[in-house]
Parts: sequence; structure tokens; C-alpha cells
Amino acid sequence: MAEFVYDVRDLKFILNEWLDMEEVFNLDRFKDNYESDDVDFILNEVYKIAKEVVFPINKEGDEIGVKFDNGKVSVPPSYVEAYKFLQENGWGTANESLASDTIMPLTLYRAYNEMIMAASPALASYIKLTTGAANLIHRFGTDKDRELFIDKMLSGEWSGTMCLTEPNAGSDVGDSTTRAYPTDDPRIYKIKGTKMFITGGEVDLSDNIIHMVLARPEGGAPGSKGLGLYIVPKIWVNDDGSLGEPNDVTCIAVEHKMGLKASATTMLSFGENDNCRGILVGSPPDSNGVSKGLAMMFNMMNESRIGTGHNALAQMAAAFYFAGRYATERIQGRPFTNPKIGRVPIIKHEDVKRMLLEMKAQVEAIRAMIFKGFYYLDIAEHSSDKEKAARCKGLAEILTPLIKTYSSETAWAMVGQAIQVYGGVGYTEEYPVSQYARDVKILSIWEGTSFIHAMDLVGRKMRMQDGQPFENWLQDRKDFIEKHKGTEGFSTEFNNLEKAYQSVATIKEIYASYYANKDEKGALIPLYAPKVLTCCAQLFSGEAILEQALVAARKITELGTEHHDYNYYAGKIAAARYFANNILPNVVMQAQLIRNADQSPIVCPEEALYIS
Amino acid sequence: MAEFVYDVRDLKFILNEWLDMEEVFNLDRFKDNYESDDVDFILNEVYKIAKEVVFPINKEGDEIGVKFDNGKVSVPPSYVEAYKFLQENGWGTANESLASDTIMPLTLYRAYNEMIMAASPALASYIKLTTGAANLIHRFGTDKDRELFIDKMLSGEWSGTMCLTEPNAGSDVGDSTTRAYPTDDPRIYKIKGTKMFITGGEVDLSDNIIHMVLARPEGGAPGSKGLGLYIVPKIWVNDDGSLGEPNDVTCIAVEHKMGLKASATTMLSFGENDNCRGILVGSPPDSNGVSKGLAMMFNMMNESRIGTGHNALAQMAAAFYFAGRYATERIQGRPFTNPKIGRVPIIKHEDVKRMLLEMKAQVEAIRAMIFKGFYYLDIAEHSSDKEKAARCKGLAEILTPLIKTYSSETAWAMVGQAIQVYGGVGYTEEYPVSQYARDVKILSIWEGTSFIHAMDLVGRKMRMQDGQPFENWLQDRKDFIEKHKGTEGFSTEFNNLEKAYQSVATIKEIYASYYANKDEKGALIPLYAPKVLTCCAQLFSGEAILEQALVAARKITELGTEHHDYNYYAGKIAAARYFANNILPNVVMQAQLIRNADQSPIVCPEEALYIS
Repeated sequence: MAEFVYDVRDLKFILNEWLDMEEVFNLDRFKDNYESDDVDFILNEVYKIAKEVVFPINKEGDEIGVKFDNGKVSVPPSYVEAYKFLQENGWGTANESLASDTIMPLTLYRAYNEMIMAASPALASYIKLTTGAANLIHRFGTDKDRELFIDKMLSGEWSGTMCLTEPNAGSDVGDSTTRAYPTDDPRIYKIKGTKMFITGGEVDLSDNIIHMVLARPEGGAPGSKGLGLYIVPKIWVNDDGSLGEPNDVTCIAVEHKMGLKASATTMLSFGENDNCRGILVGSPPDSNGVSKGLAMMFNMMNESRIGTGHNALAQMAAAFYFAGRYATERIQGRPFTNPKIGRVPIIKHEDVKRMLLEMKAQVEAIRAMIFKGFYYLDIAEHSSDKEKAARCKGLAEILTPLIKTYSSETAWAMVGQAIQVYGGVGYTEEYPVSQYARDVKILSIWEGTSFIHAMDLVGRKMRMQDGQPFENWLQDRKDFIEKHKGTEGFSTEFNNLEKAYQSVATIKEIYASYYANKDEKGALIPLYAPKVLTCCAQLFSGEAILEQALVAARKITELGTEHHDYNYYAGKIAAARYFANNILPNVVMQAQLIRNADQSPIVCPEEALYIS
Repeated sequence: MAEFVYDVRDLKFILNEWLDMEEVFNLDRFKDNYESDDVDFILNEVYKIAKEVVFPINKEGDEIGVKFDNGKVSVPPSYVEAYKFLQENGWGTANESLASDTIMPLTLYRAYNEMIMAASPALASYIKLTTGAANLIHRFGTDKDRELFIDKMLSGEWSGTMCLTEPNAGSDVGDSTTRAYPTDDPRIYKIKGTKMFITGGEVDLSDNIIHMVLARPEGGAPGSKGLGLYIVPKIWVNDDGSLGEPNDVTCIAVEHKMGLKASATTMLSFGENDNCRGILVGSPPDSNGVSKGLAMMFNMMNESRIGTGHNALAQMAAAFYFAGRYATERIQGRPFTNPKIGRVPIIKHEDVKRMLLEMKAQVEAIRAMIFKGFYYLDIAEHSSDKEKAARCKGLAEILTPLIKTYSSETAWAMVGQAIQVYGGVGYTEEYPVSQYARDVKILSIWEGTSFIHAMDLVGRKMRMQDGQPFENWLQDRKDFIEKHKGTEGFSTEFNNLEKAYQSVATIKEIYASYYANKDEKGALIPLYAPKVLTCCAQLFSGEAILEQALVAARKITELGTEHHDYNYYAGKIAAARYFANNILPNVVMQAQLIRNADQSPIVCPEEALYIS
């Protein structure tokens, strides 16, 4: 089996040389626990764990998958061991949870977690869901809820889930039919309904599973605003914290998926015997039947949506690193420009270099975008400078749909390209890239489809607070270009970046006019929203990697070409140039298409789009 | 299980309303056997078979795959039945083989075969390989070879393979190490070596397997020019046609692939006991050690490479049709432009329509390109007008790499999009689209990788015969534009087509200058070859679907908007507009990138492209 390799150097660059991590480590929440000097140790340690503990189980998880027997779901024993290893050794839920005393900055947590996601996306999914559930209870639960649930979840003894989707309510969660019936205890409701696509809804990793369930209380308004949020433990937790009776939550099916096979995707039935109890989070419905369940869940969503994009990035990065390594080992053919040297490792072929550099450019540009997002979230959540925190919150909210969607959509193309580098063997399961292709595809669907995020961008993020955060975001792009466009050796790249910026600025105007004239132009809003998202994402990630390249260029000047890090810095510059010169022009073209506003999908008869 | 649906209407349009099939049916080779009136019957009949016989086994083949036991490979029994059904009922090898008295025009054969490939790509692979092997024997074998092998292969009683790849010789087949040793009989050689990735190299579908094997005879020159071609039956065939002894061909492994699981991908060992006999095809090596083995094999390659692109098209088309059908059934959400009408089938959402129309545009444009290719091949192979035949041969040769590569690369993106239309359930194996994603990926690799075809285009096809065929090809594009650009209602589309044409004409000049100045510009040739291919393919397929749209527009004028075919024709026009207005601008941008000639992949240190 191929050894797991990962670009820990690029993660260190981000934290040590690029982002202003001093600012992050100096935030009150972190300053007693973490400092810059911890970065290399943590990353080195987890890289070792990813290689030795996590990646070795990844293929087995794919081959064996989860077993579903009489309502019980089990993962391969190696998954139970690895899950416990991570949680018990301090690499799990506690580092990311707001409830934890020793919470890490997201920038730091996510840097090491990226390697765990890359080494086994299925394993990482369980840790992530538990964090999400714990954060919800921490933020919106009562003291009693926190006392009962949080510690056990932070330690990994209990895991957690998020239960939104139902068979007939997927993208449109407002159509949920799961109900919550009041009991004599105002805190306790009886839950009844079916939820599907619940990751880890039943699995033998932990002693209890804490489900965070959206359901409509009696008297709740229709649509998403009527949904409440309930804590539904798989096994009831008594007031003294001890485990009580099983809580009438039944796993009735497990999905057979094309990938992520060791991640249990379950269908859960709540209250089959009318005996499923849930603890209300927040207030009961107001006099209009309005609850805040979905709003509470979405409050946690920025991080988990950026996390989904990050998951996609980790997988495409791993596929790239495997492909690069294989390209140094596989001997085949002679280079076009110098056939006389005979057979060479395929990395010496011009086209293989191009494919690898394209993957590198996408991986590093998207990673740069994502870590800017985590940086904004760290400041937004923890800074005492309220103005700065608010500004960063806005910027993170704008980045969220870009990261979620651009990363997950690009991953499908890039993992396909990693298979292409391998050639025929890449199509076999003897090599790891085909599994990444199968594992990664879901990420453009879950946590909101690509289209939902495109609409979130054009309909909400570009327009919230009278468009001020988006103005700030655009202004940051402009300022960066103004400040650096004279940098020697980068004029072509900045020229391309500036054109991309102007294109996005134009798109903003176009979309404002659509909203101002919705009766006539309304159909164009959803039609071109995905292109708007791609343009914004490519602009931002292109800028981010270019900013990194400027750092790299200074380092080369400082350290010289003989320094052991020279290749890393030169590669960063090449990747940034590739992105600026080959990918950013796409922004200009897409903006032109948006301006042209071809309406063929609207005009086309629906009946021509399917076979009857 | 979802019912198999396919756009048989579009296939009928191609053969009845678009291509000049009278010309094809009037060719001497076909005129006594087929006529236009057969088209609908044949397509209807095979559509029924695809639904009832072929598609029902597709999922089982995926789940069970092939079994490998003690050197024997078996497919699920349903595959044996379906294979026999097709061969015995006249839908198999005989219709495509040059050796057959009742060979169909490729245009006709391929139209019905597309539905079989779409319904079970794995099953179709066995039929295709048998045809390829039979055609090789027919064209280059002796009368005796033909007498011994052809009839049994045409009937499907024996199957066939092509054995090129070896563990250390994939893309560079010239590095093959399989050897052929002369015996006392000048016709017979002893074969020794290992071949891998041999589709159907061992399988229980037929009584015998006829391997067409590339091997280097003693005294053969190094590289591809030294390779000879040998007929190696799995079971020796005696001079009277009866089966003799097993021929020392052993299946030593079967690949575990991400898809196409019912298609046996085998590793074969020839002559483990020094007792494997092969029959020489063509002449022994000349005094310079040159054999024509590879040239003979490549002689058959245009058709099988176009066939590979066609296979990709069939799969992406099937994924599209399933997604379209599902979009009419799945109720979710409210349309953005008219939320008050309540929950709707998702096909009514603007973005779902856009995704479906994009798939439709790519599918129908690529299909149009492919059928032009088959049309050219029919004329090239069978026309008595030698000049026209030669011209069509040149055009088919130019289209070959475009079809093979553009179709297979686009399929990965479009099948991914089909999964996206389904949402979460598309990621499960309960619905057919995830299998198409897994089945289709190999097609950008086998029969030559995408890069090999890109180099075939820029290095051979654009330059052969002093560039005359490529000039002809460009002239055809120009003539079409000149002739039709004034068509009312299509000025935007023709404007985009003309810009794309001009871009490709510029690319031709740029590449000519690279070849003229190879010392300085040589590295740019392989670097931008894939983009050149994409541009040529999008130009050609964009034109082809636009040509179809002109026919459709005339039909609407003729038949009116109430005619039952109105939606089909209106859909064709919408698809053509989508392609012209949203995909053709990509040609202009790519051409600009080629002109800009960013060299970052050349400049980037190799060491920056992998993790050591």
C-alpha cells in the first residue's frame, strides 16, 4: 500500500509565514494555551498519526464499510480503535468545541485536522458531527443541558449528529414533517418522524449518541420558521448524568453509497413506539408559531460549511500528493523535448507536470481561501475588538458559500485528474485515488447543494446589511491589487487579477439591477448564480495564493536559491502564476456570459429535458 | 429499479433528418441489405432490448463483478445470457465487422449500439473487442486465418481481445518486452511475456478467445517499429477448424476496478511453460528488424477510438436521461420566480433546468460530432468515389482524437452533474448515476490517454499530408459559417461560432510556428496540446449541433408548434443555443491562453510537484 504523504510544509507556511497568527494566538481565549511555537510540533505529530494510525484504516473502511444488522450499525474494529485513539490523545472533538476550555484557534485546529480528513474522510466525519452537536448545546442549551451532555461529547465518549433531512424534505428543510408533541414537562417533547442521510445516526463508536433534531412542535408555523430544535439522546440521560432507558430511536436503514463507506449514513425513525423524548433547545413556539430551531442550527453552519469545503480540499490535496509521488516512481516514455535521454519517470513529461501544477495551484489557492476563512472566524468569534470582529464575521459569511461550493466542485475535477496522472492503475482499487473520487462526490451535495450556496451568495451574502460586508470584501480585493500591482516580476499576474476584480465588480452591479427589476429579470438571478459564485471564489483564491507568492518571492531573495526551502517557495510562485494566468481569465469570460444573459434554459420546454 | 430510458428520438433525427443517409445506404457494400426504412425498426427494437434484456443486468454486474478462481474468470450468469442473446439475435459482432456479408453502415450500427453501451457498458465491451480482433484478422490475416477464425467470431461463439499493454509498457507500447520466437513453421511463433489490462482476456462468455498480441520477434528492432502481431488462441485451433489443446495462456490476475466491474480486466501470461503458439499476421521482420504489428493494430484504431468516445457519450447520455426523469418525479422546494405555486418537481427549478440543458447540449453536440465521424468512416471505407473517400478519411482521422478525448473528459464532469441533479440519493447505489460515474472514468485513459490524443492531433493530424486534411477541415467550418450565418434568429450563435473558428485558425498558425521553431518553442507543443484539442472539439461539436438546430427550426416552421414533435425540435434549438452561447466562448478564452503561453509548468521545479 502506498504511504500517506501530505504537504505539511504548506500548512506550516500558512500558519508561520503567511497569516497573522500572532494576532490569533494573542486573543484572550487562546493566549494561555497556545503559541506560535506549538505549530510545528502539532503539525508534525498529527502528520505522523495520519500516516501511522489513520490512513492505514482508510482502505479497509472502504472495503468492509459499515455493517447493519438488526438495527445496529458497526464499523470495522480498526475504526473504533482509531476514533478512540484520536479522542483520547487529544486530537478530537475537544479542540474544536466552543465549550472546551482548551479550544484551539480554528486556524490551528483545522490545519492538523486537514491531514486527518485527508487520511480518512470517513473517520473524520464522526469527529466533526460530534463537534457540531456539542457546539449547538453549548451555545443554545441550558446550564443543565451543558452539564449533562458536553463533557462526555468533548471526550468522545458520546458522539453527536445533526438531523435535518427527511425523505421528502432535503434541500427544502422547511417541509419537514417530523413532529414534536408537548408533554407535562415543558422542557420535554415527544418526537415522531423519520430522518435520513444522518451521518453516524447509529454506530458502535461510542456509548451514546446525542441527536440534534429539527421537528415541528404542535402549533408550529409551516415552513422552516416553524421548526424547533431538540436534543434526542439515543439512550436517555438521567438527571444525575447516568444512562437510562433506550429512547425509542431506531435505525431503520443504512445507505449504500459510492464512497465514504465507513461513514454510516443512516435513516432514523424517532418515536415508532410513541416513546421518544427530546429536550427542547431554546424557547417553545411564539404566538405566531415561530421557533428558532433552524436559525440555531444555521448559526453553527458557517464553520461546518467551510469545514465541508475543507474536507473536499483535503481529499483533492491527498489525491494530488499521491499522484505526484506516483509520477516520480512510474517510468514510462521519453520527454517530448528531449527524447534522447530515454525512459523517464512520468513527472518529467510536460503534460504530467502541467496536470500536477494545475492540481497544486487549485489545492493551494483553495487552501489559502479556506484558511483566510478560518482566520476570519477566529477573529469574529473571539476578538475583543467588536468592530473588527463584526467586519471579519461579514467576510467569513461571504467566504462560506465560496469555500463550500468551489472546493467541492473543483475536487471532482481534480481527483479525476489525479486518476489521469496514474493512468490505468489509477482506475484500480490498488491505488488510493479512485477511493478519493468516490469519497469526495457527496461534498457538493451535503450541507447544502452547490446551488443553495450560490443563492446564499447572491441573495443573502451580497445583499446583507445593505451590501456593506460585500462592499468591504470587494474593497479588500481592490486595496490588495493597488498595493501590490507594481511588484516586480508579477505584472502579468496582477493584470489578470485586476481584470478578474473588475469583472466581479461588474457582476455585483448586474445582480443589483436584477434585484431592482425582479419582475423582468428575476429568472436570471438563479440562472447565473452558480457562475457568480465561481467568479468570486476564483478571484479570492487567486488573490490569496498570489499574496502567498509575494511572501515566497521575498523569502527567496532572503534565503537564496541554494536554501533547502527554495523548491517550496519556487513551487508556490509557479502555482500562483499558473492560477493567475490560466484560471483567473475564466472569471472574465464567465462575467461576460453573465452579462450576455443567454436564456436558453428558461426558454427550453421542460418536456425537452426528459424522456417520457 | 429505475426504468432505462434513452433518447431514441435524437438517434432517429440523426439518421432520418440530419445526415445524408441516402448516400450511405446507396454505397455498394450496403445497398442490397439496408435502407432508410430500416432505421426506425432497428432503433425501436434495440431500445426494447436495451430496456428489457441489457439494462436489467447492469446493476447485478456491478454488484457481483467478475469472479477469478484458479485461472478461470466468470461473469454473472445473466451476462452470459445477455451476451448470447445479442449475438444470436443479430445485434452483435457481425453487424460491425468488415468481414461480415451483412455489415451495417457504422452510422446505423453505432446508433443502436449506443443504447446497448448505455444500458450496460461492461457487456458492450466484450462485443466491441471481438469485433476489433475479427477486423484485424479479416484485414491482415491470410485466407486460412480468416477461414479458421472469422465465422466463429462473427457469430460470437468465440470472442477476441487486443493485447498491447504490459506492466512496464502502457502509454509507451514500444517498450514492450513480450517476445516471439520463430519455430520450424514460418507461420508459427512461440510467444512469451505478460500482458495486462486485457479486457475479456479470460471470461466464460464463449468457447474460445482469440488474442491479438503484440510481441517483438527475435531480431526485431527496439521500439514500436519492431513489434509484430500474432493471433494467439486461448485454445489452439486445428487446421480443420476443430479445437485442439489449451495454448499455454494463463490468466494470472484480475483487476479490482472502481467501475466496469463486470468487464473482466485481466493480466495474461503467455508461454509460462514455453508452449504458447501464435500465428504471425503479416510479414516477419525485414532486414532492419522492422515489423508492421503496431501499424496494423492502429489501422483499426480510428474506429475503436471513436468507439471509446462514443461509449463515454452513451454513458453520460444515460446519466442525463435518468437525471431528467428523476427531476420530473422528485418534489422539492418552490421555484425562485414563482414561489407561490408551492412545491414542484425539481425540473421546474431554474438551476435544475440549467444543469439538464447543459448536459443535453454537451450530449447532443458530442453525439453529432461522433456521428459525423461515423459518417466519414462509412464513406472513407466504402465509397467508390476515391477522392471523396480520401477526403473523408482525413476528416475522420482529425475527428478521432477530438471524439475520444473530449467525450471521455466531458463525461466525468457531466455524470458528476447528473449526480448533482439527484442530490443525496444520487450518491447512493440505489440509483444508477453513481455507477455511470464509476464506469466512465477509464475511458479517458484506455485506447490512449487524453494527452496521447492531444499529441496525435497537434503532431500528426494537423500536420499530415502537409496539413491538407486539416486545411480541408477548417475550410468546411468556414464554409458552413459563411453559408448560414445570415440565418434569421441565429445571429448571436453564429457570431460565437465564427469567433471560435477564428480562434482555432489562429491556434493552427501558432502551432505551425512552434514546429518551425522547435528548439525554442518545443516545450509549448505538449504543454498546450490538450487545450488545442478542446478548442477543436468544441468548435466542431458546436457547429454540428447548430447545423442540427437549423434543421429543427425548419421543421418547426413546417409542422407548427402544436405538432407532437415540437418539443423535440425546440429542445434541439435550445441545446444548440446553450452550446453556442455558453460553451463556445471557452474556445476564444483557451485560444487566448495558448497565445499567452504561460510557462509556469515548465519553470516549476519538479521537486515542488511531489512530497518527498
